Amino acid sequence: MSGKVYLVGAGPGDPELLTLKAVRLLRSADVVLHDELIGSAILQLIPSTTILRNVGKRGGRKNIRQQEIDTLLVQYALLGLQVVRLKGGDPLIFGRAGEEIEALRRARIEFEIVPGISAMLGAAAAVQLPLTHRELSSSLLLLTGHSSTAGRPEDWPAYISSESTVVVYMPGYDYAGTSHHLISCGLEGNMPCAVISQATSADQQIYRTTLQDLHTAPHLPSPTLLLIGQVVQFALCPSPENQFAPVLFDQRPAQDSERSE
Amino acid sequence: MSGKVYLVGAGPGDPELLTLKAVRLLRSADVVLHDELIGSAILQLIPSTTILRNVGKRGGRKNIRQQEIDTLLVQYALLGLQVVRLKGGDPLIFGRAGEEIEALRRARIEFEIVPGISAMLGAAAAVQLPLTHRELSSSLLLLTGHSSTAGRPEDWPAYISSESTVVVYMPGYDYAGTSHHLISCGLEGNMPCAVISQATSADQQIYRTTLQDLHTAPHLPSPTLLLIGQVVQFALCPSPENQFAPVLFDQRPAQDSERSE
Repeated sequence: MSGKVYLVGAGPGDPELLTLKAVRLLRSADVVLHDELIGSAILQLIPSTTILRNVGKRGGRKNIRQQEIDTLLVQYALLGLQVVRLKGGDPLIFGRAGEEIEALRRARIEFEIVPGISAMLGAAAAVQLPLTHRELSSSLLLLTGHSSTAGRPEDWPAYISSESTVVVYMPGYDYAGTSHHLISCGLEGNMPCAVISQATSADQQIYRTTLQDLHTAPHLPSPTLLLIGQVVQFALCPSPENQFAPVLFDQRPAQDSERSE
Repeated sequence: MSGKVYLVGAGPGDPELLTLKAVRLLRSADVVLHDELIGSAILQLIPSTTILRNVGKRGGRKNIRQQEIDTLLVQYALLGLQVVRLKGGDPLIFGRAGEEIEALRRARIEFEIVPGISAMLGAAAAVQLPLTHRELSSSLLLLTGHSSTAGRPEDWPAYISSESTVVVYMPGYDYAGTSHHLISCGLEGNMPCAVISQATSADQQIYRTTLQDLHTAPHLPSPTLLLIGQVVQFALCPSPENQFAPVLFDQRPAQDSERSE
């Protein structure tokens, strides 16, 4: 009888942001195949008797192809093992889970998907930035800067509404190109944006600027996310050398939306 | 000394999809203020000595205004209490957390945001639907059908790329209007779409159709999500009366992207 595969989201980094279900599965799996970016605090939850394999493809260095990962998942399951495929963030957002799902269905292997806290949710929570806002942002657009094949902007929508919050996963460091492209999609140059690095970890950093000045941003350590939109004004920026002062909402004038006097 | 407020995501419904941090905070809080849609299995995790208040605004029935919730959060914290504000899904996506953040900053109350599994992630995992796909969908657009003020399509972007997966939170039941609007934004009438109801619960249902036939979809119980895009072809549809047969990927011809012979 064949085993079962679980595609499990590991969340953004902080082990306390794992779901109860992810922890249960990590503690009971026979095999865990994990991405490069899964931190040691999460890997330490896995019993020492579990088969643990890093199948990370970060930057193509290790040159493990997706097809090889698909094959590993199927082969371990055919041995009757319980297999966890542990992916950073959520498995269904820019995680190439589609290919693993297809491989498992073709091989008729039973599988289940366990969602995780996507990087965007972890980063936004960490800097206290609402991704949507009743008055500032009515929609949310997720893009990816890099894929396994190439830098991507040609896949981006031709037009982006300035009422959307935009989140770029894996934005890379071609900030000038990214900024140019987003402005050509219709966003204003003075739109607030922020690079958030290693969100939810002890080494988290944020750099806040505007789209037109994004090219001056430092190259913070990966993983990073780029957030663009009016809601970025909410982001906490502890670093004093940041171009913006932290927004102190309690220093703003009383709002029109409050009860009138 | 004032207490602290935690804006905590409760995830999509399944209590096992709570984060470790959410569970820890629910077990130790002095006060929990929760949304209408938080299920009893999650509320049962809260000790019986905790002050528990339903501040749900579902359909405006209870007529608790956002400003009253903001005031409650501040007042409980000023009493020195640890307060959890428990919201369905993730607090920062269509959850009006922006207003609570502003109120807490104005009152100089310490607070922290704990992300949750957003409804979209729970639903996609439950029906095995990758939200992005290397060949089918390069971006993801989140919209909301209803807000506290009014039905919304006037806030939607004027143009939506057919290479985006589109997720409509709180889509309501004006399927004909929603479909008409999405087609006027540039999506094809034959684009696959699905209504997913009560995802991750025992009562989960999915109805899969196309955008042009969406008006024939049944009114499944809320909460629902509407997903539109080529990736919807992946969704498992256990119900035989559904208009589509389940997609069996193992019956498709071998793909071009596989190793050539």
